[in-house]
Amino acid sequence: MGGQATFWFELASTYSYLSAARVDDLAAQRGIEVAWRPFLLGPIFAAQGWSTSPFRLQPAKGRYMWRDMARLTAARGLPFTVPDGPAMDLFPQHSVLAARLALVGLAEGWGKAFVRAVFEAGFAQWQDIAAPATLAPLIRRVGGEPEMALTAAVAPEIKQALRANTEAAQAAGIFGAPSVTVGEELFWGDDRLEAALNLAAER
Amino acid sequence: MGGQATFWFELASTYSYLSAARVDDLAAQRGIEVAWRPFLLGPIFAAQGWSTSPFRLQPAKGRYMWRDMARLTAARGLPFTVPDGPAMDLFPQHSVLAARLALVGLAEGWGKAFVRAVFEAGFAQWQDIAAPATLAPLIRRVGGEPEMALTAAVAPEIKQALRANTEAAQAAGIFGAPSVTVGEELFWGDDRLEAALNLAAER
Repeated sequence: MGGQATFWFELASTYSYLSAARVDDLAAQRGIEVAWRPFLLGPIFAAQGWSTSPFRLQPAKGRYMWRDMARLTAARGLPFTVPDGPAMDLFPQHSVLAARLALVGLAEGWGKAFVRAVFEAGFAQWQDIAAPATLAPLIRRVGGEPEMALTAAVAPEIKQALRANTEAAQAAGIFGAPSVTVGEELFWGDDRLEAALNLAAER
Repeated sequence: MGGQATFWFELASTYSYLSAARVDDLAAQRGIEVAWRPFLLGPIFAAQGWSTSPFRLQPAKGRYMWRDMARLTAARGLPFTVPDGPAMDLFPQHSVLAARLALVGLAEGWGKAFVRAVFEAGFAQWQDIAAPATLAPLIRRVGGEPEMALTAAVAPEIKQALRANTEAAQAAGIFGAPSVTVGEELFWGDDRLEAALNLAAER
């Protein structure tokens, strides 16, 4: 039956997009289950004194990331656009509302499709994922009811659930996204996805 | 006959150890040539305001790196020791002298074996790789003449060659080690080694 892995993702994280697109297929190949947990990198970055994404703070690393993502998405057939002009101002995207909606959707069964749709809207079309006007059509497309979901997303229990996820991520030693935990073992980055799921399958 | 790739490494970089151990085998499988260029991350980190390794500046990332390295070296059969106690004070190792010696050795034909020996001394035995007493036996073991090499390593032209490598790395957009360049294309990290060499082989 295989073991259990937890997939920690951030909707403003480009590399999380890569993993969200393939983690369930890789898990199914190994006969294991993966729990999806959205969290926010902002508070984790802030705790180490960073005001924004390291890809903004380190321009050379930022330039490299776009090129790396362009190569990887092309190789995997994923829609992606390197931002330019006004789109560049959208990076990093503000992901709080989308992450709360992901929690609503994961409980209602449309969360994973919603997450993948948000990544594509954010990183291929460069729509503003903080805007309800961006998110409502995505919710509808994946089978949710936009007005109810947007109301549920700002309820205290959902806000608290996202804070709890972020605190749990930090407590697990997570410092970036995506990450996968398998028991006490932490794996960081889309590059470690196979290794993480292989370990889960062995357990 | 295949293309040309340049392997940029830093003797204080744990992930550079992984790539130095396998880059020539991977290149041979693809029928390509790889030029080895040591450089220093210190000046590149300093230029972005960092006083030491990001693995020191970000403790959670540092803890993760040791676990990740332990898993990877175990899987690949490479000697490695997670530092503890006094060995921890040796991280990051001071690599200037070893990098200069690598330049001497690469010109004399014993450079690659020396580099691999330095990585093992530094990251498995936690010897001080800034100490001539550590480096002299390694030079001898790989076929160099320690006294002559240590004298050559501090000659102006070798000092300048290392500075030039570091400046060339920075100009190529390099922000971490190991990195591989194939023409204008930059690949960062041991995780991108295959992709980089595949591209070189296509050219």
